[in-house]
Amino acid sequence: MSYNLLKGKKGIIFGALDQNSIAWKTAERVHEEGGQFVLTNAPIAMRMGNIKTLAEQTGSEIIPADATKTEDLENLIEKAQEILGGQLDFVLHSIGMSINVRKGKHYTEQNHEWTHKGLDVSAMSFHRVMQVLYQKDAMNEWGSIVALTYMAAQRVFPDYNDMADNKAFLESIARSFGYHFGKKKNVRVNTISQSPTPTTAGKGVKGFDGFIAYADKMSPLGNATAQDCADYTITLFSDLTKRVTLQNLYNDGGFSNMGVSEEIINKFTEE
Amino acid sequence: MSYNLLKGKKGIIFGALDQNSIAWKTAERVHEEGGQFVLTNAPIAMRMGNIKTLAEQTGSEIIPADATKTEDLENLIEKAQEILGGQLDFVLHSIGMSINVRKGKHYTEQNHEWTHKGLDVSAMSFHRVMQVLYQKDAMNEWGSIVALTYMAAQRVFPDYNDMADNKAFLESIARSFGYHFGKKKNVRVNTISQSPTPTTAGKGVKGFDGFIAYADKMSPLGNATAQDCADYTITLFSDLTKRVTLQNLYNDGGFSNMGVSEEIINKFTEE
Amino acid sequence: MSYNLLKGKKGIIFGALDQNSIAWKTAERVHEEGGQFVLTNAPIAMRMGNIKTLAEQTGSEIIPADATKTEDLENLIEKAQEILGGQLDFVLHSIGMSINVRKGKHYTEQNHEWTHKGLDVSAMSFHRVMQVLYQKDAMNEWGSIVALTYMAAQRVFPDYNDMADNKAFLESIARSFGYHFGKKKNVRVNTISQSPTPTTAGKGVKGFDGFIAYADKMSPLGNATAQDCADYTITLFSDLTKRVTLQNLYNDGGFSNMGVSEEIINKFTEE
Amino acid sequence: MSYNLLKGKKGIIFGALDQNSIAWKTAERVHEEGGQFVLTNAPIAMRMGNIKTLAEQTGSEIIPADATKTEDLENLIEKAQEILGGQLDFVLHSIGMSINVRKGKHYTEQNHEWTHKGLDVSAMSFHRVMQVLYQKDAMNEWGSIVALTYMAAQRVFPDYNDMADNKAFLESIARSFGYHFGKKKNVRVNTISQSPTPTTAGKGVKGFDGFIAYADKMSPLGNATAQDCADYTITLFSDLTKRVTLQNLYNDGGFSNMGVSEEIINKFTEE
Repeated sequence: MSYNLLKGKKGIIFGALDQNSIAWKTAERVHEEGGQFVLTNAPIAMRMGNIKTLAEQTGSEIIPADATKTEDLENLIEKAQEILGGQLDFVLHSIGMSINVRKGKHYTEQNHEWTHKGLDVSAMSFHRVMQVLYQKDAMNEWGSIVALTYMAAQRVFPDYNDMADNKAFLESIARSFGYHFGKKKNVRVNTISQSPTPTTAGKGVKGFDGFIAYADKMSPLGNATAQDCADYTITLFSDLTKRVTLQNLYNDGGFSNMGVSEEIINKFTEE
Repeated sequence: MSYNLLKGKKGIIFGALDQNSIAWKTAERVHEEGGQFVLTNAPIAMRMGNIKTLAEQTGSEIIPADATKTEDLENLIEKAQEILGGQLDFVLHSIGMSINVRKGKHYTEQNHEWTHKGLDVSAMSFHRVMQVLYQKDAMNEWGSIVALTYMAAQRVFPDYNDMADNKAFLESIARSFGYHFGKKKNVRVNTISQSPTPTTAGKGVKGFDGFIAYADKMSPLGNATAQDCADYTITLFSDLTKRVTLQNLYNDGGFSNMGVSEEIINKFTEE
Repeated sequence: MSYNLLKGKKGIIFGALDQNSIAWKTAERVHEEGGQFVLTNAPIAMRMGNIKTLAEQTGSEIIPADATKTEDLENLIEKAQEILGGQLDFVLHSIGMSINVRKGKHYTEQNHEWTHKGLDVSAMSFHRVMQVLYQKDAMNEWGSIVALTYMAAQRVFPDYNDMADNKAFLESIARSFGYHFGKKKNVRVNTISQSPTPTTAGKGVKGFDGFIAYADKMSPLGNATAQDCADYTITLFSDLTKRVTLQNLYNDGGFSNMGVSEEIINKFTEE
Repeated sequence: MSYNLLKGKKGIIFGALDQNSIAWKTAERVHEEGGQFVLTNAPIAMRMGNIKTLAEQTGSEIIPADATKTEDLENLIEKAQEILGGQLDFVLHSIGMSINVRKGKHYTEQNHEWTHKGLDVSAMSFHRVMQVLYQKDAMNEWGSIVALTYMAAQRVFPDYNDMADNKAFLESIARSFGYHFGKKKNVRVNTISQSPTPTTAGKGVKGFDGFIAYADKMSPLGNATAQDCADYTITLFSDLTKRVTLQNLYNDGGFSNMGVSEEIINKFTEE
């Protein structure tokens, strides 16, 4: 299904690893809606995934970039404009990684060098990307930048570990940079706070299955899928949301505004 | 411009008074996007405005209804389904009125009967509408209900008077009913919190001009217009936002997440 | 234990019904801390409870008042100042009642007259109280007004029914009136959003036991008790929180900022 | 004035630089309320300020510690317990510094190494402190940890620059670690979000005077002072707030819940 919502629009999509990735689904939907883009990922992530399949499927080029390296981002953003033939209309940031999580370090036993490294990849990268876009004047007027986040930035989900703090930092960057990008070029910057999603990355989090079942039972519409997130992102890239900026937007079946659902209470009443 | 985002979708639009109304602009955009609808307004509002022009322009019928009367709403919702040929996909609630504001009563000198009456019109009406829709099973699966609100529900805007409290009540109804409507029929319920907008109603608020100038200088993208709100509402009625529910969504050029802008500070530094 | 935090302070305490009431515990603590007050409740509530015991215990007088009647409140506030010998330093509003809840009406099957009546008692009463205090200039400079609320004002707790919307209205009144009372007399107005508490009123809510167990397992410090709430209220009445106003303050063991606890997840993982 | 609220309580106070510091005022108030503490600051900060005067005045010892070095914190926390004779009841974290701000780097032209360094000092230090306290089991049951923050963590204040993102990270750490510390030892962790305060550090921020005037006119009770913050912190260290945790508490004269005040609007209406 296509509405041609993004006809003529050009952009960059970070973080498509494999078919389970939200960025992958988004790339497919942007393509269906008539948008063109360059795909990018860290060299190491590219070896693990199969982004080439996505590139072929969507007629896109891939430019590897380590989002923690400004020079890589400069190269990416220059090349992307050359390939696409002009300034950009949209950017998706879907990058996250915590070494403490990977290594099984409890939140109360962090290795703070790893914490810095995870922050650098997961959140500071978003500032780097926008700083390069801003300094190179690479965005079109009324362009749209979206980063993916998770509600652990507002509330405690213990297994999310230091990624919670990284996402809080990321969301703050969206507001802080969104102000300057708005004033300069009317570019909007928002984050989408998505339901827990069984991506290849998500599935690695401890206790993920129990959590995803809990979230689904709490949410009146059930958990939002990666496909739902791709659809929602399309609306934020389109011209229909031009004055929406600095927002953290929940795509979560209603979870964020639930205190408790009847199904959850029932589990505690049965006891 | 049309994307056919609402092709085949049917609904009801409350509150189109004249060309300045957000509901009016929304009706036009819904029509452009292929949606069909019944227009409704209170009998008294219909005499003041020119809703017939809109009905002709969009090929819609008008069914008057006092949103504070359950029997009027029952009649409206039955007739609308007859006219449109089936269950509804979208409903827009854009209704608000404070007698205390109209009569110039300060917030600290309220006539509480008037306060109740304003609440009945501005907020309880939203519960009534949804209760009738729910009991008559008038919504399609994955339908979308939107009410318009204002940020005075969260923060103090003194001249907004008791409408602030009404909007807080309205937003709570959106969450409370949204839960039940989600569980029963996967219907989503959201509110859009819009920039101050120079509608015929808005312009009546004391100090409106100064306030609208302030809000514009505070918002990195400037104030959202009625047209922007219509566009945004389209995305919420479309199939692209299926898992977004119970949310209060700011369409305000970023105002809601601003603490202060450079332009505002400069006014205080100059002194 | 006493710190003499409220030595010389005078006030009114609404809503002490019996020993389980938060208002009862607060009255005891205010007395211990050296404060003097008048107790009040609706005539009907007074027949049901044993407020006279509390009055004797704390050396207080009782002035019955229906908080939905301005003339009752005028009488109360005049008499209280006569009895206490001057303007007031603190007021506690702890009043709530939903006819829909009492009569077992589901949220989707409300009797809207009852909804108005519940709102009148539970929320509009707070406006009435402050309006009378304001117009009679009954508060001292830097006085403190507190109303009790519940997190259902922000998030869905289905069994809380229309009390959720009432509490949202109440919290909005706190902000709206708090602005005017702050500007005029430096009076602060705040709400305390308390853990579910097994008061005589609370215990009547359907599914209360399951819910209270759930909330306790979700909160890192467990549910806050009525005694905890009384202690917290003391700090808000004291001179130590003079610049805290318009706030909704959670006294809930951390519940409000939890997404999920390990104990809750474990219940879903076991399956 | 003293209520003996902290009689017998022991703790550590970070960040007292000079008489304008919030930490300084807090140390004085803790002393008045009967609490005992060790003072600490970074070696470099100690050379700049006059912390020895405070130590003499309050009968406290000083243990220098660089809060970015775990070994320094281990030494501090061990020594503090030796000096004070047991586990700790309270800790105040009042540490913040941005190299980008100091060097006049605009938010869109950050040196990301400096951003990391500022984050390390301003926010990661709070995790380090709590991690050492946690691992050494240095806190008493029902102890209280408070960090100072600013509302730029939620909303844009352009001149606050990357400190906004640092404070968002800090507040997230309070929630994340507060959960674990609550479960383990019933220790509460909160942040106080204070009005802009003319401390020696605050005064260095660009446009500070204009901003402080704006905030004062926006806040119904005017800006909270350092003294107000010290008083408020006392309540959070006391036994009267035992079930308050994971909260970000505004001590700001009401600013945080203001949309606009009449005084601000008037400035825009006059034009």
